[in-house]
Amino acid sequence: MASEKITPRSENFSDWYNQLVIAAELADYAPVRGCMVVRPYGWALWENLQAALDQRFKATGHVNAAFPLFIPMSFLEKEKEHIEGFSPELAVVTIGGGQVLEEPWVVRPTSETIIGYMYAKWIESYRDLPVLINQWGNVVRWEMRTKLFLRTLEFYWQEGHTAHATQEEAEEETLRMLDVYTDFAINEAAVPVIPGRKSESEKFSGAVDSYTIEAMMGDTRALQAGTSHFLGQNFAKAFEIQYLDQHNQLQHVWTTSWGLSTRFIGAIIMTHGDDQGLILPPRVAPIQIVIVPIYRNDDEKSSVLPVVEKIQAELGDFRSKVDDRQGITPGFKFNDWELRGVPLRIEIGPKDVAKGTVALARRDFPGKEGRSFVSQQNLYSRVSDLLTTIQSSLYDKAISFRENHTHEPGTYAELKEIVSHGWAYTWWCGNPECEQKIKEETKATIRCIPMKQSDGEGSCIYCLEAAAEKVYFARAY
Amino acid sequence: MASEKITPRSENFSDWYNQLVIAAELADYAPVRGCMVVRPYGWALWENLQAALDQRFKATGHVNAAFPLFIPMSFLEKEKEHIEGFSPELAVVTIGGGQVLEEPWVVRPTSETIIGYMYAKWIESYRDLPVLINQWGNVVRWEMRTKLFLRTLEFYWQEGHTAHATQEEAEEETLRMLDVYTDFAINEAAVPVIPGRKSESEKFSGAVDSYTIEAMMGDTRALQAGTSHFLGQNFAKAFEIQYLDQHNQLQHVWTTSWGLSTRFIGAIIMTHGDDQGLILPPRVAPIQIVIVPIYRNDDEKSSVLPVVEKIQAELGDFRSKVDDRQGITPGFKFNDWELRGVPLRIEIGPKDVAKGTVALARRDFPGKEGRSFVSQQNLYSRVSDLLTTIQSSLYDKAISFRENHTHEPGTYAELKEIVSHGWAYTWWCGNPECEQKIKEETKATIRCIPMKQSDGEGSCIYCLEAAAEKVYFARAY
Repeated sequence: MASEKITPRSENFSDWYNQLVIAAELADYAPVRGCMVVRPYGWALWENLQAALDQRFKATGHVNAAFPLFIPMSFLEKEKEHIEGFSPELAVVTIGGGQVLEEPWVVRPTSETIIGYMYAKWIESYRDLPVLINQWGNVVRWEMRTKLFLRTLEFYWQEGHTAHATQEEAEEETLRMLDVYTDFAINEAAVPVIPGRKSESEKFSGAVDSYTIEAMMGDTRALQAGTSHFLGQNFAKAFEIQYLDQHNQLQHVWTTSWGLSTRFIGAIIMTHGDDQGLILPPRVAPIQIVIVPIYRNDDEKSSVLPVVEKIQAELGDFRSKVDDRQGITPGFKFNDWELRGVPLRIEIGPKDVAKGTVALARRDFPGKEGRSFVSQQNLYSRVSDLLTTIQSSLYDKAISFRENHTHEPGTYAELKEIVSHGWAYTWWCGNPECEQKIKEETKATIRCIPMKQSDGEGSCIYCLEAAAEKVYFARAY
Repeated sequence: MASEKITPRSENFSDWYNQLVIAAELADYAPVRGCMVVRPYGWALWENLQAALDQRFKATGHVNAAFPLFIPMSFLEKEKEHIEGFSPELAVVTIGGGQVLEEPWVVRPTSETIIGYMYAKWIESYRDLPVLINQWGNVVRWEMRTKLFLRTLEFYWQEGHTAHATQEEAEEETLRMLDVYTDFAINEAAVPVIPGRKSESEKFSGAVDSYTIEAMMGDTRALQAGTSHFLGQNFAKAFEIQYLDQHNQLQHVWTTSWGLSTRFIGAIIMTHGDDQGLILPPRVAPIQIVIVPIYRNDDEKSSVLPVVEKIQAELGDFRSKVDDRQGITPGFKFNDWELRGVPLRIEIGPKDVAKGTVALARRDFPGKEGRSFVSQQNLYSRVSDLLTTIQSSLYDKAISFRENHTHEPGTYAELKEIVSHGWAYTWWCGNPECEQKIKEETKATIRCIPMKQSDGEGSCIYCLEAAAEKVYFARAY
């Protein structure tokens, strides 16, 4: 139960976030360094995100499977860049059943290698392609500085791994899944994202090209919210994933991988939350509507409760909850559900019963602005419309925020100023040295090279050489 | 694709099982000792089992959450019996991020300890009780002899963990979840089970009482298919899980835990399968209906395919699949889907198109016996009825099999004979020594002390002393 006030966002955004995650009972710190416990309210949110994604994966022809948690150390070493990128982050099992293992086992940080091994076993001919498999599971990366949901040693995610006959098909798949993530972020979570390509320095270890969806958080920092990688034939060659083509020639496959994790919960919190707490988008909120009965004595109680029950029954399709806790004031309950971000509150008191009305209170507009009194008649369609309005209103608000905090610098000095409180959208020549200098001097990195590029050329914001592409620079989580 | 014949069950049941799991593409051996890869067809089956269970958990007031994969070694040591039971089976992480850990982390074999630690943190007053949490996840137990689904180092399961104010409530919960498992096994998987209590020697390490559902496999061996444990205050005391009661007195809670794993897939395979392959119960089958178009030339193809599409659309609610693979004979397709256990096949050829009929073939009665020709009219309700019939027919068949292979021995010599090819249902005095002797001499163990006991007394089958309860003896997986 929420009893203490949380730090306002403007005072300390990081404290606000940490306190809110705990107070809203989304997650808790585990007694194992850097690990989290996802509490029931947080897990219910994740289940809704999973369902929305899983449906999209299946609609694009993918199936789920489960690969082992453990990977022999030698597997990771087969792809040079992969092991270089992941070796500092590994948790290693060295003892099993009381015996020291001959070869240590890595707890998977990602599964390209062990899945590559299995694909080499399963794929024989072009008839076996494409292979379109996704896995929901847990992975472990030994992080030094952790933060609930955003960066934890163990986290939950899905990782898609596909194998294709041609480069073109694999590239199409990579971008198809980037589109799926974009659509999911915007239409389910009301989180505006910019899909784009990663620069060389920000690529996944082992990828030819990495793509990302980038979102702006409430403190204007960027969050990488999902990634899709074109792996070329790097893993196909490391694991000899080959097929016989129509001319009976042995060919290496082309692979992709793509993932989205519980980190996305952090994106939702930091995109929509306010000083009162969470604001959850109706489409993914574990509780969409909370109904609070209001009464001062048994007489009022016995007239109010039957109406509350009737109304909850009418709203059957929605995820609703009646807060019938005893010994707690309605005001306390209002605050509690505001903290937990329930999009819509229905209040029913004796006067409402007499007049056939209810009060509706929108979470995204706390106070009088978001409160209205409506008839109990046609409540279902009224509530349905209102939830749709809230969903799109959250998105619009987030888009405005991002637009208001994204600027095009005319000079490098302006870029420095912009990235201290927003995103800079500007020309970059493609030289990693310029990127590196900007990072050192401003802490801003290239978040992505957006897919949508306007025509024409410009000059690099750092070196002033000719530049063919515009990019986003920002400080990031 | 299935190309080779699998060993008949009567010849070698174990080979039949191992070959079938691979041939039907349910699972494969991982390149990590004792671990499995659950392939898409197997995982789709598990997802259906999960959905059927999860629905029941939620209907009985439970919520899902996620606790860490890693447990500090010292946690396991806090409950004496628990660590004694699990210590030979642990996988241990000793290195993280390139450094040797101060305290080794165990990869969870089960989560009573770490969940107990969190419950101690969360539970303060009687108002916080009961806590009814379930977790879906992976666990690791270092097994010496492994077999796909039945016993693997890593496996997938759910583990429920609840905390209650009183012993009575915790005991009720334990039995409620045993009922949920029984209902699930019977009504979703058509697997007959006997719910009962475990003897002291077969209890979960750390439990006061363990309950089980026991199923008879096609070779008459028993399989423990799900367990529910009353943990008393063992973990509450080890982790100081306490609450203030209504009189402001500090009390220890009472806890339970209950789990069902991917092992249940093994139960389905070995309960229903035959020499042709799997037979999946319609309610959980990933594909309920396969539609095979039959044609010999392009003319026939163009008359058959539109009817196939129309019929699949009509059967929209069901999980159906059209097998439109080219260059493969219908006969091969029939065998392939029989191997994979699809409950119902619909065949449509040019004659069917002309006559407005289809052929329906039941998987549970291969050959002519299960084949009928019906009108395309009202196909939806016909198919719906037929799937219901198949579901109950599978259950009836399994019940008959169990009844035909369960006998009441009059003497210990008869018990020895019975347990070599079935289950012995008989009196036991309760003495662990009799149990132990029988185990040594026959390899049969007490599978359970069934919940349903008839009145009266008898004499122990081994020592002939007075016995108050009847039990099932069987060799088990």
